[in-house]
Amino acid sequence: MPATDRVKQILANYPSDNPGTLTNLYRLLNTGTLAGTGKMVILPVDQGFEHGPLRSFGPNLDANDPEYHFKLAIESGCNAYAAPLGALEAAAGKFAGQVPLILKLNNSDTLAKIDQPCSAITGSVEDALRLGCVGIGYTIYPGSGQRNVMYQELREITIEAKRKGLAVITWSYPRGAGLSKAGETAVDVCTYAAHIAAQLGAHVIKVKPPTAHVELEESKKVYEKFPTKLETLADRVRHVITNTFHGRRIVIFSGGEAKGTPELLEEVKQIAAGGAFGSIMGRNAFQRPHAEAVKLLTDVMAIFKNAP
Amino acid sequence: MPATDRVKQILANYPSDNPGTLTNLYRLLNTGTLAGTGKMVILPVDQGFEHGPLRSFGPNLDANDPEYHFKLAIESGCNAYAAPLGALEAAAGKFAGQVPLILKLNNSDTLAKIDQPCSAITGSVEDALRLGCVGIGYTIYPGSGQRNVMYQELREITIEAKRKGLAVITWSYPRGAGLSKAGETAVDVCTYAAHIAAQLGAHVIKVKPPTAHVELEESKKVYEKFPTKLETLADRVRHVITNTFHGRRIVIFSGGEAKGTPELLEEVKQIAAGGAFGSIMGRNAFQRPHAEAVKLLTDVMAIFKNAP
Amino acid sequence: MPATDRVKQILANYPSDNPGTLTNLYRLLNTGTLAGTGKMVILPVDQGFEHGPLRSFGPNLDANDPEYHFKLAIESGCNAYAAPLGALEAAAGKFAGQVPLILKLNNSDTLAKIDQPCSAITGSVEDALRLGCVGIGYTIYPGSGQRNVMYQELREITIEAKRKGLAVITWSYPRGAGLSKAGETAVDVCTYAAHIAAQLGAHVIKVKPPTAHVELEESKKVYEKFPTKLETLADRVRHVITNTFHGRRIVIFSGGEAKGTPELLEEVKQIAAGGAFGSIMGRNAFQRPHAEAVKLLTDVMAIFKNAP
Amino acid sequence: MPATDRVKQILANYPSDNPGTLTNLYRLLNTGTLAGTGKMVILPVDQGFEHGPLRSFGPNLDANDPEYHFKLAIESGCNAYAAPLGALEAAAGKFAGQVPLILKLNNSDTLAKIDQPCSAITGSVEDALRLGCVGIGYTIYPGSGQRNVMYQELREITIEAKRKGLAVITWSYPRGAGLSKAGETAVDVCTYAAHIAAQLGAHVIKVKPPTAHVELEESKKVYEKFPTKLETLADRVRHVITNTFHGRRIVIFSGGEAKGTPELLEEVKQIAAGGAFGSIMGRNAFQRPHAEAVKLLTDVMAIFKNAP
Amino acid sequence: MPATDRVKQILANYPSDNPGTLTNLYRLLNTGTLAGTGKMVILPVDQGFEHGPLRSFGPNLDANDPEYHFKLAIESGCNAYAAPLGALEAAAGKFAGQVPLILKLNNSDTLAKIDQPCSAITGSVEDALRLGCVGIGYTIYPGSGQRNVMYQELREITIEAKRKGLAVITWSYPRGAGLSKAGETAVDVCTYAAHIAAQLGAHVIKVKPPTAHVELEESKKVYEKFPTKLETLADRVRHVITNTFHGRRIVIFSGGEAKGTPELLEEVKQIAAGGAFGSIMGRNAFQRPHAEAVKLLTDVMAIFKNAP
Repeated sequence: MPATDRVKQILANYPSDNPGTLTNLYRLLNTGTLAGTGKMVILPVDQGFEHGPLRSFGPNLDANDPEYHFKLAIESGCNAYAAPLGALEAAAGKFAGQVPLILKLNNSDTLAKIDQPCSAITGSVEDALRLGCVGIGYTIYPGSGQRNVMYQELREITIEAKRKGLAVITWSYPRGAGLSKAGETAVDVCTYAAHIAAQLGAHVIKVKPPTAHVELEESKKVYEKFPTKLETLADRVRHVITNTFHGRRIVIFSGGEAKGTPELLEEVKQIAAGGAFGSIMGRNAFQRPHAEAVKLLTDVMAIFKNAP
Repeated sequence: MPATDRVKQILANYPSDNPGTLTNLYRLLNTGTLAGTGKMVILPVDQGFEHGPLRSFGPNLDANDPEYHFKLAIESGCNAYAAPLGALEAAAGKFAGQVPLILKLNNSDTLAKIDQPCSAITGSVEDALRLGCVGIGYTIYPGSGQRNVMYQELREITIEAKRKGLAVITWSYPRGAGLSKAGETAVDVCTYAAHIAAQLGAHVIKVKPPTAHVELEESKKVYEKFPTKLETLADRVRHVITNTFHGRRIVIFSGGEAKGTPELLEEVKQIAAGGAFGSIMGRNAFQRPHAEAVKLLTDVMAIFKNAP
Repeated sequence: MPATDRVKQILANYPSDNPGTLTNLYRLLNTGTLAGTGKMVILPVDQGFEHGPLRSFGPNLDANDPEYHFKLAIESGCNAYAAPLGALEAAAGKFAGQVPLILKLNNSDTLAKIDQPCSAITGSVEDALRLGCVGIGYTIYPGSGQRNVMYQELREITIEAKRKGLAVITWSYPRGAGLSKAGETAVDVCTYAAHIAAQLGAHVIKVKPPTAHVELEESKKVYEKFPTKLETLADRVRHVITNTFHGRRIVIFSGGEAKGTPELLEEVKQIAAGGAFGSIMGRNAFQRPHAEAVKLLTDVMAIFKNAP
Repeated sequence: MPATDRVKQILANYPSDNPGTLTNLYRLLNTGTLAGTGKMVILPVDQGFEHGPLRSFGPNLDANDPEYHFKLAIESGCNAYAAPLGALEAAAGKFAGQVPLILKLNNSDTLAKIDQPCSAITGSVEDALRLGCVGIGYTIYPGSGQRNVMYQELREITIEAKRKGLAVITWSYPRGAGLSKAGETAVDVCTYAAHIAAQLGAHVIKVKPPTAHVELEESKKVYEKFPTKLETLADRVRHVITNTFHGRRIVIFSGGEAKGTPELLEEVKQIAAGGAFGSIMGRNAFQRPHAEAVKLLTDVMAIFKNAP
Repeated sequence: MPATDRVKQILANYPSDNPGTLTNLYRLLNTGTLAGTGKMVILPVDQGFEHGPLRSFGPNLDANDPEYHFKLAIESGCNAYAAPLGALEAAAGKFAGQVPLILKLNNSDTLAKIDQPCSAITGSVEDALRLGCVGIGYTIYPGSGQRNVMYQELREITIEAKRKGLAVITWSYPRGAGLSKAGETAVDVCTYAAHIAAQLGAHVIKVKPPTAHVELEESKKVYEKFPTKLETLADRVRHVITNTFHGRRIVIFSGGEAKGTPELLEEVKQIAAGGAFGSIMGRNAFQRPHAEAVKLLTDVMAIFKNAP
């Protein structure tokens, strides 16, 4: 299948990667409903690990079945499905090749109370190869006192993943003693977090939709001196994209907490209008009944398909 | 993309492989015009190495350009393109992801005169990963006094490839002091050669179309005792498939020396009628002018698409 | 399941092996119809590789299917099924755990003409582990000019297998320029060959039923000086067992070329009467129609069950 | 290109380095406008990571584009461009060879609040080789309670970098609970910090322009006992150079916070007059509009070119 | 220094290489008199090893001094200097950075008489890094019965060199029992040899100027069927270039045995007219008195500079 111009343009932003990694980025960009558009919608299901199965799958018990998410991603035409080791292993052999997989290589549970959060490494690049993944996922918590541990683990995973032709997808979630709760999604912090992920060598970066809150004093001064349009979510998304290598890195946005469909679609429209490369949508998809989830993902993809 | 029943059926014949290898087999089976049919047509271009560029590309000088073959495979809808290291490197970064690649890991030139033929290893599994290949290709010469060297090299490559989620495609070409020239394509020898490749752990096996000649005395006795229909090429292809794990391994057939189009298409029809999983067609494709080559490959795929 | 006294007695003959290897020997001895008796019947199917699929499966085309042999071994209550890499991989994932597996680690084809026979290594201990095997099989050709190559390869495989808790089953087939055709099964040569396998560290040794022929001049002198009862096959089997660590190694006998049922059962009775630990029966089983094969294997097991 | 006498003189100060490292030092010294003069101006862009993209690129949004800095360094005739992994990867393949690169191997963000600062390792010597860098950059914080961690990481990176022929460029920034804010740029502390970097094996040392402030009691006593000319910045720069192996190590000075052009050029004149080997100028360059930045860098280079 | 369009065009032919290797190719292409033209003249001095110092340096005893060749290459503006380990080590520290170096990694002496020639590996990629080389050189002898040994050694060196950012320069010299003496430089054999080097992954390929002799029967048939202009050396050079990935690989030509200046310059003119990427000139340079050698190399470069 020849690449579209838009996909060629995006791949040209990774001139130091080997053909193996470019091939897997191509697969991410050329699968499902949004194939070839340069946009992507990814289904991530690590919430069972992160928040526990009750909070995650209580609203839809069927979603406890690892096969459920493979089917949902395939049926709804997602670009990829991302999950921790166990969930992928439980079905990858059965659905081999039907949807690009991303192995979430670190995860954190909420049973222990930790001041300075740091996820555990729960899988390896070797696992990603044997499971047929197109890339690995890794979460960093900029703002945590443990951030150096995470950056350094990611450095080693990244060099191995790139050598073996995999893509690196980084979840960048500001969190930790240095930040207020509102600060975790503040527009300046979110922007900084996306930039850090890019500097650490990520091919795809996932952040939360930024709020209008500004956390850092230094940021306030910058915004005063260089007035920046940040009123709408679309403005703020554009701001993040610009600050992440000027649009040369694929930045996608999560939907955050589960919410009502109209509210959610409105948010996605803003994200798309701001030039985002796509959405990563977990709870908002799998906590709905199956048919509704497929409908929702389809609608989300339609928004990106028609985005500028 | 959900798998077709036929593809699921074929993948079920590899119950000991990890999801990574199954994923790459799926990619082989789900690309191009024949995607999902369980049939495949592969473009192999190692003739420049094996026979020299003059004999290979003299009829069509453009085919000296490594990009030529990527374009031909993509444009004509082939399932995969197979070539040695240099030819893949020269274009893989540019066409990343657009066609499944197979790295031919051993090659032989015809400048040296050798009694017991044995190819040199000219690439590695690590190369296949960094170039984004779905599998590795390796040639064995059953019948050569050097066969143990080849089998043992292949054993090591195979175990590494399978651990890292790649598919193993084995070219099985009987050759060497123990065989007459006619014996190299004799039906009994070809059948034996395909079986050896399967026992060595190949996922996909490539052999030459078997002639009606019977080489070995022991084979003649078996055919006398257990009468076997071997008149037509279709009969003989079916015979090879049956003797290679009873249809549980993907066996594909080469077109051999360049020949006229009607003759070639007739041969492919026989191969398809015999239940072959596909064709691998090099010289007959790239030695023709480009448009003719695309037309030919398209016609070949149509035959397999309509095969039982 | 507590071990029987006989099994305890046999395991006590391997006091230097680690519990892992003893566990796998126990599995071999405690599976199927003969479980706990200290006797075993193994189904070996490497003939497709060794003699080609035509000679091997021509009489029963269904036997081309790798699943066929798993089913035959399970249904007839064999202690184990032994085969090369490809044949095990093609079904091991589907029948996982249902019958002990032995991976034949070296194999030889008959396409090349070689003076000094030497099999190629076609699998590895790592493969045996990932396929869930209880042990590895390896063929040596005492009498071949290449015997040192084989002994040394086996040494390395043995040390790895034992470290990783696998059993070593050695096929010891005298062959090569130093022996007459009759000498290959001569009682003195067969005895010597079994002893070599034991000295190389085998846990289980497979030899052919010895004939009354005496090959070596030195042997004749010994038999003259120390008269030995060698008239019946039972005598000769007892002679082999005694000369192989005085019964402290499991020695089993093959049935050799396919033959008629009464003749075959008579041979087995002699083998059992001679104190053999069991039979290994390939062609005589799988070349018969399925029901006949099950009946034959059942009858063979009954003989060993009732043996002294 | 034969080396100038001055370059030969400088390289002679590194008699224990292998030719690979000398070659890369030569490249640093022989590129751009100042080639051959023994002086250098380096463009460093790690501020996006260190201070966030807003504070860094807010004044000049185009500078978010990783290609921007490659172009700026090339166009203005800098000796080298230094940046973290992500920023180099995003363009190194496109501008390969056009400007010497330095991979900043550790970086720190300002989202987390940390008492004892310590940067995270965010790249490796292996990365520097695959990206074609002439050297690696590493920041130490003498004065931090975590200094030993940094010195020991640097020790390992240094030994690997030198074995593989790379140059080591050390940013030495006194910082941490043991120092007052003014002390971070105090002349005695700055001098001490440069010396520590030299002792740790750096080839090139970057410090901030020292102020007239004296931080440590012990220093005050020394200056009283041995009166030292420290009035002008030129005096203090000379003082640092002398205390860093008596001029046998390349010491360069940063421009610190962004400031007005006349003020900045005056500072550079002082630095040059003090015998510095050059400047490293980031924010003062890339936060200006492009044409102004090129003009500024050109003026800075002119100052060094005409320096004694 | 911004790259010229021609250099960019050439580097684009290596889309699978990392920026490190591209940087070193850039250095090769951007040094000396021919910098930026896409042409190169390399000084190789391995003749002391290959033919002995008497035959090599007898005509000019000064050339025994390893510094002699560094100076000659620098003074005459060569793109690179290539030599074995000892010769490079003897002066690389002194001339570090002044000329790109290529470490010849294998060499053959002529003291032993060998039927099937095979060079010894006399250096390593690690040596090339510590000596500051831009690439490694390796000689293959297509046509030798030992070719597989050479191809396989080169495979391992190539993968390491490319991972560490070095360029691979392959000397391809057909030689061995399978070829007549005239055949070693026959146009068809030379073409085949260049193609093999490209398939093995070389970035730069060095062959001898092809004669009008045609060695292989198969080649004669091809030339008859597809008439090819091979009268002049320029024709034949063009033929080699076309057959080596259609001009996508840098192919340079040696001057062969020492000869008179007018004859030599005429040969170079033909080589340049045929579209060669340059010359590699050893004996013809260093066996002349120094001033003459500089003059000759200058004249050769002028020819390439003015070539189409």
